[in-house]
Amino acid sequence: MSNQALQNDLFLRALRREPVERLPVWLMRQAGRYLPEYNATRKRAGSFLQLCQSPELACEVTLQPIDRYGLDAAILFSDILTIPDALGLGLHFVEGEGPRFHRRIESAADIQSLPGPAAMESLRYVADAVGLIRKTLNGRVPLIGFSGSPWTLACYMLSGGSSGDDFLTARKWMYSQPVLVDELLAKLVEHVSAYCQMQIEAGAQTIMLFDSWGGLLPASQVSRFSLQPLSRIVHSLRAARPDIPVIVFVKGGGHWAEQVVSETGCQAIGLDWTVDLGRVRDQVGRQVALQGNLDPAVLLGSPAEIRAQARRVVESFGTRVSGVGHIFNLGHGISQFTPVDHVHHLVEAVAEASTQAA
Amino acid sequence: MSNQALQNDLFLRALRREPVERLPVWLMRQAGRYLPEYNATRKRAGSFLQLCQSPELACEVTLQPIDRYGLDAAILFSDILTIPDALGLGLHFVEGEGPRFHRRIESAADIQSLPGPAAMESLRYVADAVGLIRKTLNGRVPLIGFSGSPWTLACYMLSGGSSGDDFLTARKWMYSQPVLVDELLAKLVEHVSAYCQMQIEAGAQTIMLFDSWGGLLPASQVSRFSLQPLSRIVHSLRAARPDIPVIVFVKGGGHWAEQVVSETGCQAIGLDWTVDLGRVRDQVGRQVALQGNLDPAVLLGSPAEIRAQARRVVESFGTRVSGVGHIFNLGHGISQFTPVDHVHHLVEAVAEASTQAA
Repeated sequence: MSNQALQNDLFLRALRREPVERLPVWLMRQAGRYLPEYNATRKRAGSFLQLCQSPELACEVTLQPIDRYGLDAAILFSDILTIPDALGLGLHFVEGEGPRFHRRIESAADIQSLPGPAAMESLRYVADAVGLIRKTLNGRVPLIGFSGSPWTLACYMLSGGSSGDDFLTARKWMYSQPVLVDELLAKLVEHVSAYCQMQIEAGAQTIMLFDSWGGLLPASQVSRFSLQPLSRIVHSLRAARPDIPVIVFVKGGGHWAEQVVSETGCQAIGLDWTVDLGRVRDQVGRQVALQGNLDPAVLLGSPAEIRAQARRVVESFGTRVSGVGHIFNLGHGISQFTPVDHVHHLVEAVAEASTQAA
Repeated sequence: MSNQALQNDLFLRALRREPVERLPVWLMRQAGRYLPEYNATRKRAGSFLQLCQSPELACEVTLQPIDRYGLDAAILFSDILTIPDALGLGLHFVEGEGPRFHRRIESAADIQSLPGPAAMESLRYVADAVGLIRKTLNGRVPLIGFSGSPWTLACYMLSGGSSGDDFLTARKWMYSQPVLVDELLAKLVEHVSAYCQMQIEAGAQTIMLFDSWGGLLPASQVSRFSLQPLSRIVHSLRAARPDIPVIVFVKGGGHWAEQVVSETGCQAIGLDWTVDLGRVRDQVGRQVALQGNLDPAVLLGSPAEIRAQARRVVESFGTRVSGVGHIFNLGHGISQFTPVDHVHHLVEAVAEASTQAA
């Protein structure tokens, strides 16, 4: 990892809630199927998993949206399910059906026999990708590392893959075997912590934790199964590296924003498109930065509409404090159907709206 | 429709927020695949759609859960997509993939050429089912009629069926062609109103409007695309029949409960499993009844756990006012994997918890 000075630190300054001259912008899943250059690299890789596992190719696609759009942060190209794969569940992808595992967690014995955090060593290829990306970026923009959250990983591990029924199987476990689920989550806290620590040591300058399915939890269980495990990870990472901010994104959890902030100790929260940024800002005050929340469907509309909606998101945060703690992003991953030039319109519109509003 | 006196009016009294000696309970999708007698009738019908379209068989399955469990309300057996089917879109079901239409709405011309509310006459089989169910129930419990909401119907009609991407296509329309979406919703308001009116005339004693996908809307758009169309339906139904209560269920919209109540003018709201009943009660005050919100996954657990969670839901409403405006239900449809005897445990537990708490 090189220690080059950052040429563009808008993203890190916004995370620290320092004033910025323009809102930083990056997009969840920014290296993805809407980009022709991504599809070309993926074809060379053979499969999505082979693309994740090759540091050179993962580095290549990570930089593609930075080169094309001049975005203000890069995010490691990988998958949230690398950890269960490293634990021996056998990740694979079925065309049109999403991720699947060859085996799933079915018993207490399955949980107890899961390997410890040393198993993360088999994800060394991720650290190698991080190191290579940092070197190749050469200080252009900061690099974000990431992991799935314990609850979200548990959802997939208990259900055996993606789900058409809101992870009914995982929710059944939560009610009928809560202590076993605690045990599984405790193991995953160790794995996620070790995995993120490895990414930080390799050069990740921010960590984002994706709790994609925290919004499926009943209000009474959110703390125990989603937020407390996240809190243990945030505190372990911050104890070792207080200079590395952590972003927590609980999809569908925007209405618990205050609880996410107070329980996890994170430095920023991600917000999906269903909540109003200004309302969340009123709730959480000045404690954390907010990242989000444009609906990815907006990018399928006309350039004029994209500009109008981007401005609306910027203004919803509150024009008087624009740029103090807001990172512009989508509320969910960019759609594969997004026309490539539409992202140019978005980036320009955010720049215009945020410099005028500042 | 016979005018027989009701032998069990707990459900209607709870809807009016009158005191009850025991909480009424019914379950969304209570006539469904977890019941062996349902599967036997469905087999005789040939297909799900043929089952919906036969008043005799629809009546038979509607009464099955009443006979087996002594639930406090019956709900018409039908599908939320009967209206788009009547509008000529060609509803069919693909095994394991959910509903599909032979054609979808793709242009302004497609919207403008949709037939008017007279097309609901082709759903006369639904009214016939309602009449037959009322006659067969013979006053045992009240009968609920229902419809999908305009926004939810529009989601399916614009996407061509169920969706693996949170109805991205419908959300694209909302941003890029909002006036056309208004036009589509205005037509659907007329259709849904006429359809519910037909059910009321045939004997439905309550109407429930299912906005299954309202929770996908950005906060800034909820009023325009979900709640205002619902409000026009509620007001049209109530103007004609102020004695018939209307329940509005916006799945994923529990955190807008106050707005749902104030904007739609409904008499009760349905709540999914992610919200806390007591918190919602504090927000909406005494204006409406609340229906919900046990996680259907609870019914896959042990009898002891089912009893504990049922008690928790009853108590979360607030023990001092238990029975004043609470209708016990699930937060979503019952799972096909529910063991049939588990519903007995649930019904008993609600009775015990609510009579003790009263």
